[in-house]
Amino acid sequence: MLTVFGSTALDTIRTPARTLQDALGGAAVYAGISASFFVDAGLVAVVGGDFPRRHRRTLAEYLDLRGLSTGNGRTFRYDGKYDETLSTRRTLKTELNVLEGFRPVVPEEYRDSRFVYLANNDPVQNVSILEQFDRVKFSMCDTIDFWISTKREAVRKMIRSVDAVVINDEEAKLLTKEHNLVRCAKKMMKWGATYVIIKKGEHGSLMFYDDVIFHSPGFSLGDVVDPTGAGDSFAGAMIGKLAAGGSASLSSVKKAVVQGNVMGSFAVEGYGLSRLLRLKKRDIAARMRAYEKMARF
Amino acid sequence: MLTVFGSTALDTIRTPARTLQDALGGAAVYAGISASFFVDAGLVAVVGGDFPRRHRRTLAEYLDLRGLSTGNGRTFRYDGKYDETLSTRRTLKTELNVLEGFRPVVPEEYRDSRFVYLANNDPVQNVSILEQFDRVKFSMCDTIDFWISTKREAVRKMIRSVDAVVINDEEAKLLTKEHNLVRCAKKMMKWGATYVIIKKGEHGSLMFYDDVIFHSPGFSLGDVVDPTGAGDSFAGAMIGKLAAGGSASLSSVKKAVVQGNVMGSFAVEGYGLSRLLRLKKRDIAARMRAYEKMARF
Repeated sequence: MLTVFGSTALDTIRTPARTLQDALGGAAVYAGISASFFVDAGLVAVVGGDFPRRHRRTLAEYLDLRGLSTGNGRTFRYDGKYDETLSTRRTLKTELNVLEGFRPVVPEEYRDSRFVYLANNDPVQNVSILEQFDRVKFSMCDTIDFWISTKREAVRKMIRSVDAVVINDEEAKLLTKEHNLVRCAKKMMKWGATYVIIKKGEHGSLMFYDDVIFHSPGFSLGDVVDPTGAGDSFAGAMIGKLAAGGSASLSSVKKAVVQGNVMGSFAVEGYGLSRLLRLKKRDIAARMRAYEKMARF
Repeated sequence: MLTVFGSTALDTIRTPARTLQDALGGAAVYAGISASFFVDAGLVAVVGGDFPRRHRRTLAEYLDLRGLSTGNGRTFRYDGKYDETLSTRRTLKTELNVLEGFRPVVPEEYRDSRFVYLANNDPVQNVSILEQFDRVKFSMCDTIDFWISTKREAVRKMIRSVDAVVINDEEAKLLTKEHNLVRCAKKMMKWGATYVIIKKGEHGSLMFYDDVIFHSPGFSLGDVVDPTGAGDSFAGAMIGKLAAGGSASLSSVKKAVVQGNVMGSFAVEGYGLSRLLRLKKRDIAARMRAYEKMARF
């Protein structure tokens, strides 16, 4: 199975066309639901007493929730606003609430997970939770500018501890202090990452392994309505696909990266989680075929 | 044969590491030299009395120069400065000089060219020169923000007159007033372009034809020293490759786009034209193989 550890949030998302209030969100939610199309996935996360029952029911349709605990206090909240191009998001408010002081515990039933995804959490927490698993075959982490700015050394240590890092292009530059993505990746590999996957939003992704570089363009869409969660959906689909196959070979990782790009392209087609929640496996298969057509020459 | 019409310049290029002064440059020079690796190409352009003999000798090694005239006055000059990321260039000075009032004439010997590339020239001029050819099979034009801002209607008319438009992502957005590249392309196709190729710098390119979208990622490089001319080299290689094959079918255009990306990747590896001028056909073949490896899954 796959275990996903990370934030479960109530999101307020403001786009020029529409505002979503207290929508179900969080990096681990997008990643977990995305992964669940490929493999059984368990969620390690915390919510507050105010977490709506309907959101819990939604999560339960996709994920094993034995790792979801309810803390004293309110659920983690995020509030962000996109500009009219939908390419830049400004954070209006972040309330950590129950996330503050959360000490994640991996349930007994998840401890033999061979695949583990650590979302953009506190890097210290990500490293320590990894130690609660017994026989991890492939672990992957994400990170964000907040941790890079406040806990850079811990981020580096986390990178040493996992098999793969998945990270945005801008955050890769911030972390490594390089302008060029090849150099960014080489530095992270020098720090100990076996695989580095740099997400480039609509431009797709670059995967680095040893001296191999693999390009996977984004799936072009004429109607993007809300980019929230696209990167998390990418990562979730990627590790979900890997976990489903049970292999972490280079060729498996390449195919998983393509799957990630395809899944990220669905996420942006609806507000919040809505498109993922309407998604059928046949939609994914059809878009994979369309994607291959787009990229073959 | 292929005819390339456009600017031949003396460039001053300022990068954080180095400044080139009065280097041989210009959109048609990069495009023409790039194309010449695949097909015989003739240049229609004008230089001034001050154009150095050594630059003329360089051009003559790659291009037919019966279409190169010498005007009264100084050669067109461009002066630009890159920021430390090499991704943003600020224009410090543009001197049109002999370009101003230039009335291009296609030499008799070029008139039966089946492939014609119109660089980022005055769109009115691009349209009128096209009428001087007898049996064009495939014509392609580029444009830049200056013409979009000052002669938008003429740019639209030019797009109706050619088979393919090759354009930067930011300029495509400026021209069509759309944020999304799929929408940009659809609008240009509605205006009459059969093929639209949007260049995305290091992210490669998107090609649009009818309801087909073809993605071609950029070739990743750890050492980019000077992006000048990369887009022009892309376009030149693309149409050069097409002209060499003599076909303008969809599958030929896809392969030509890939060739364009590969050739653009060489251009950025040296200051000014230097990398293209050192290039061997075997280097191109080797990078095409590496590119295929990067993109296949």
